[in-house]
Amino acid sequence: MSVDRPYNFSPGPAILPLSVLERAAEAVKSLALPDPALEARLSILEISHRSPTFERIHERAIERIHDVIRVPRTHRVLFLQGGASLQFAMVPMNLRQAGRAAAYVDTGVWSKKAIEESQRLGPTEVIASSKATRYDHIPAFPPSETYADASYVHITTNNTIYGTEYVDMPKLEGGVPLVSDLSSHIGSRPMHLEHLALGYAGAQKNLGPSGLTIVFIESSLLDRTLDPSVPTMLRYAPHAEANSLLNTPNTFAILVLDLMLEWIAEIGGLEGMEAHNRRKAEALYAALDRSPLYRSHARKEARSLMNVTWTLAGRDEEDVTARTKRFLVAAERAGMCGLKGHRSVGGCRASIYNAFPQAGVDALCEFMREFERQGG
Amino acid sequence: MSVDRPYNFSPGPAILPLSVLERAAEAVKSLALPDPALEARLSILEISHRSPTFERIHERAIERIHDVIRVPRTHRVLFLQGGASLQFAMVPMNLRQAGRAAAYVDTGVWSKKAIEESQRLGPTEVIASSKATRYDHIPAFPPSETYADASYVHITTNNTIYGTEYVDMPKLEGGVPLVSDLSSHIGSRPMHLEHLALGYAGAQKNLGPSGLTIVFIESSLLDRTLDPSVPTMLRYAPHAEANSLLNTPNTFAILVLDLMLEWIAEIGGLEGMEAHNRRKAEALYAALDRSPLYRSHARKEARSLMNVTWTLAGRDEEDVTARTKRFLVAAERAGMCGLKGHRSVGGCRASIYNAFPQAGVDALCEFMREFERQGG
Repeated sequence: MSVDRPYNFSPGPAILPLSVLERAAEAVKSLALPDPALEARLSILEISHRSPTFERIHERAIERIHDVIRVPRTHRVLFLQGGASLQFAMVPMNLRQAGRAAAYVDTGVWSKKAIEESQRLGPTEVIASSKATRYDHIPAFPPSETYADASYVHITTNNTIYGTEYVDMPKLEGGVPLVSDLSSHIGSRPMHLEHLALGYAGAQKNLGPSGLTIVFIESSLLDRTLDPSVPTMLRYAPHAEANSLLNTPNTFAILVLDLMLEWIAEIGGLEGMEAHNRRKAEALYAALDRSPLYRSHARKEARSLMNVTWTLAGRDEEDVTARTKRFLVAAERAGMCGLKGHRSVGGCRASIYNAFPQAGVDALCEFMREFERQGG
Repeated sequence: MSVDRPYNFSPGPAILPLSVLERAAEAVKSLALPDPALEARLSILEISHRSPTFERIHERAIERIHDVIRVPRTHRVLFLQGGASLQFAMVPMNLRQAGRAAAYVDTGVWSKKAIEESQRLGPTEVIASSKATRYDHIPAFPPSETYADASYVHITTNNTIYGTEYVDMPKLEGGVPLVSDLSSHIGSRPMHLEHLALGYAGAQKNLGPSGLTIVFIESSLLDRTLDPSVPTMLRYAPHAEANSLLNTPNTFAILVLDLMLEWIAEIGGLEGMEAHNRRKAEALYAALDRSPLYRSHARKEARSLMNVTWTLAGRDEEDVTARTKRFLVAAERAGMCGLKGHRSVGGCRASIYNAFPQAGVDALCEFMREFERQGG
């Protein structure tokens, strides 16, 4: 790693491996593929999404989503645009059934946004929430009678802002489809994606650059008849039928996604990623737990491997604010950026996605000790 | 230019200037900006869209859309996702008014798709069409009584598939908003964008990579009250309010757009681009017109500066098909790709967007002469 490369704790778009950045940069200059097609000598930015050269990249990325991320073959993989935020609308538009409410578990700001988009379209029930304790945990999964009549149940399995994560993927009873926003932990560890009828994630945290949404949906759900007013671009079925080439996709992001998936496979697949991610998170949580200066926001049983959140102790609010500011300024000076917490929690947040190196976590832990020793 | 760089006539994603590709590749490795922020030393792919470093890039791209492309300051510039295809739905969702139909001019496949999305949502009238002659021209603009009661009038000012283009931007009477899909000729010449209430374009032809949609909308249109069922992500107003940072945008594409706009300014702005584009198109149309072997699809009065379409002459359909195939195979061998016409017109298409070099057009003209001399 270049000596002047800072440690980037950004919650997203987030750090990518240097090897992936270098290969992506080469592809921007020229794909330079061992392929007789003329397109193979052009930049990834300037070749048609319908050229065989691009189609091979696209097909390989889909295959790797199945192989590396372990999306079951019963599900279709789609590469869309608009981020998780557009999925908040597409999910109810495609899965809501007449006379059956949509059920949501509320675990914070992003769940809330998903709930609001569902409410625009029809009856929506919040079947569990951790709002009362500022979203510091994942609520116990509600009993099946609470969702037995629901069109689907929607969960947010990693909550970037609060640093909470579902340790286990729920498995619903009675055949109600389970839907998850996986944006901030997809590909970080094995997680029983086969429990999901539909999963979606923006690529820009664990799997690539921004502007690409990965969706996977159980094939049987593609046959539902939708209200004719639902726009073509907001229907999953035509995207599946066109293999995500209904219109021009974000071709560059699909190439980088493919490079990221190859990188994950090389690290040892999901098991390798989990070992790497768990080591980092444990080091950081240990640093929080051993000190009275730092207070973990998330409860122990729901701590995220991806986003570690904490506040700083102080005499009063003013003191806390001043100390937090000192901490962030000193961290920047020490070469660490992106550590500011979301305004709804305050304090600090270290986003340590797949590509984040152990050395960066060690440097942060050391910095935290030093900050404390110098009186905070 | 590298000797082994082919001439790429792709209709999009399309050729970009080498200097832009090189700068984009550098930014993928590291922004390396003269800026004290740590983010300035990271890749464009991994910095937060809310970092001041990205915000400066974003702001500059918006300013250049105004300055270089001459989008009037009365309009808000938005950077969205989902391509022109998502705009086909967003336009009626945002501009349709109760009791007033939406009016469309039909100039081919892409107009048709826009019309179909409007029909999903309410009364839609086609007020002019060139369908009867296989979209080989732009129909005369209909008199104001045909659209006096319309919510808006929608046109497609360059038609990639047929190679037709509005020579002049219409100006509507009676204050009815005019909307245009500018995807395949935005930024190619001066074109009175102030006549438009709303314009939109995918960036991947003239202005950058895929996965970025440029929209500009008259500020006064943002105040309309919409049906509550319209999803947040499909409303222009929240995007405008959040300055296109409602959710994570395609940050890389915005950077490349900014580089493209800078390149256009250096070439001499829209006048410089027009001179460059007109020279290329005229050379190619002259080559078509001087030979009985090649037949221009578009009528002279509506010929596009961006997409030149032609069929080859032959004894019968079979002969034409075989000759077209020979032409395309020989062109590939001569280092020219992306020349295959769209299936709805057949024959050939040369897309010669902003970044396409004169030398490539000269090479194609020479190749066409040679192909003819050798008996086609």
